[in-house]
Amino acid sequence: MVMSLRTFIQMMLPAVEDELRRAVASVNGTGLDELHHMLAYHMGWEGDGAGPQASGKRIRPLLVLLTTAAGGGRWQAALPAATAVELIHNFSLIHDDIEDNSPLRRGRPTLWKLWGVPQALNAGDAMFTLAHLEALRLETTLPNEKVIPALRIIQEACLALTQGQYLDIAYESRQNLSAKDYWPMVSGKTAALLAACTELGALAAELDLERQAHYRQFGRLLGLAFQAQDDILGIWGDAALTGKSSESDLVEGKKSLPVLYGLERGGPFAKRWAEGHISPQEAPALAEQLEAEGGRAFTQDAADQLTRQALQALDDAQPSGEAGAALRELALSLLQRQA
Amino acid sequence: MVMSLRTFIQMMLPAVEDELRRAVASVNGTGLDELHHMLAYHMGWEGDGAGPQASGKRIRPLLVLLTTAAGGGRWQAALPAATAVELIHNFSLIHDDIEDNSPLRRGRPTLWKLWGVPQALNAGDAMFTLAHLEALRLETTLPNEKVIPALRIIQEACLALTQGQYLDIAYESRQNLSAKDYWPMVSGKTAALLAACTELGALAAELDLERQAHYRQFGRLLGLAFQAQDDILGIWGDAALTGKSSESDLVEGKKSLPVLYGLERGGPFAKRWAEGHISPQEAPALAEQLEAEGGRAFTQDAADQLTRQALQALDDAQPSGEAGAALRELALSLLQRQA
Repeated sequence: MVMSLRTFIQMMLPAVEDELRRAVASVNGTGLDELHHMLAYHMGWEGDGAGPQASGKRIRPLLVLLTTAAGGGRWQAALPAATAVELIHNFSLIHDDIEDNSPLRRGRPTLWKLWGVPQALNAGDAMFTLAHLEALRLETTLPNEKVIPALRIIQEACLALTQGQYLDIAYESRQNLSAKDYWPMVSGKTAALLAACTELGALAAELDLERQAHYRQFGRLLGLAFQAQDDILGIWGDAALTGKSSESDLVEGKKSLPVLYGLERGGPFAKRWAEGHISPQEAPALAEQLEAEGGRAFTQDAADQLTRQALQALDDAQPSGEAGAALRELALSLLQRQA
Repeated sequence: MVMSLRTFIQMMLPAVEDELRRAVASVNGTGLDELHHMLAYHMGWEGDGAGPQASGKRIRPLLVLLTTAAGGGRWQAALPAATAVELIHNFSLIHDDIEDNSPLRRGRPTLWKLWGVPQALNAGDAMFTLAHLEALRLETTLPNEKVIPALRIIQEACLALTQGQYLDIAYESRQNLSAKDYWPMVSGKTAALLAACTELGALAAELDLERQAHYRQFGRLLGLAFQAQDDILGIWGDAALTGKSSESDLVEGKKSLPVLYGLERGGPFAKRWAEGHISPQEAPALAEQLEAEGGRAFTQDAADQLTRQALQALDDAQPSGEAGAALRELALSLLQRQA
């Protein structure tokens, strides 16, 4: 049997889901049923609208496990790391939703919307703690000398995450932003955790430091390329341009790469942006204006270049076998490319 | 020279402060000065009103380090653990202040009051992450096989902290609370981290598991006794009863042990409580009412019993030398007792 990406997903994700449920189940005890339910709701397992579409795609654990397999290791050895990064991702979503005042996440009301800010904030802290407890389980799957380095990779990514988030919030009230301000923000918010995923996967495969560094670089560049590509879709994708374009990043006021490029350029787009909130009705015309000023091509160039670099880093890491092919397939699908 | 508690404090706390500053300094990089400043402000080092009174007493690191010394170990070996628990304590304060809508902390405006909820929430996450990174430094001071157990002690305490905080917030809207609901809440909110402090100290001293367990028990009971004692002061202490009694726990609506006792009893105190917000002017008379119903004596009995048990656990742990005497002195001072 040939193992495609799909086959790996069908093999790996149920194991991840089991681990996630076991981790979240350690919130228990008298009077704590509701706290457990909040976490299970956020993970997409319970409550109205529960189901796979409410859980997200579990891309990060998949990246960890495929990297381990592509590096010639047993993917099961990386399961606690894969589980931990998914919990960290979800902790950050719970807190981001509070910080961004977002009422919806994956089509369902957010935790703070249902339980209020105090309980949602605290539930995020609980999810964060579960991630750290889960990471300690690497003790049972990795050689002793790899455990602390793995924990350090995870914690450094968390620090980068909070630093990127700081910049994102700070940009909301900053003037004079330019395209170069984009990179430290997305390096923290998106790329750091993906870099940690592939580095952890390589560590669990017990690869040498050089190949670990290539895998890390692959994850980081994949994150940056993905974000730039996602920024294009956020303004010129179908959802952003159709009749109800309330999902456009322009309406959301998101400081994405094309927007920062347009602000730096200081033309008609920047003037309109400075005047305040953009309505869904205005979004398509403003998207056209930004494209005319070069914002789309600039971002596409950046995404293309980062994609090439990411795939080069993956080649340098020498992924092997069917898992290696599946890892490449996952990367291409994230970057909206045909394999 | 005889080493009193004061001498130990003068020796240990500057080292803790250096470590805390070093840990917080790892938030750096382009555009991150303000995030660093937020953390340094909260720690009491920068901004209006900076100084020792804005830093808190650093009780938790002191407990860790004195326990290590009282157990016959080198207190320096426990420094990363001491630093980590203080960072965790401060992370929890930043988030508690958001959750409780508190405008002041140690006499200064809280982070969320100065920087808004989104940045304060994220700064708390950064502080939490710094704690975990700091804890990893135990790798350089402890034997290999002690590091993961130490990290697990820390993470279990964090989980208990979030569970206690969940209960605290949930109680705000719960009816039919009784005195027994108090213990799971304060076990998580206060006692879990103090139990971790003394257990970590004992672990760093490389004591056997039995003495570690006695030290853990000492920390836990100290936390519970301290909280019950603090609850008495919160209603019948000088600050709570003087002319401006806005600092009374009755005004704050805090579900402390005497209050829960009064609610369970269902007398005039409970009736007044159910009617809503208590003004500073009303607080002294209501405190008298609660005392007449037995709330003060009940709480004092609990505090006395827990204090006896805590001191017994400390005896069982066999603390030695001047550090042992200093640890006992610290416990007594926290419990407002004469040595």
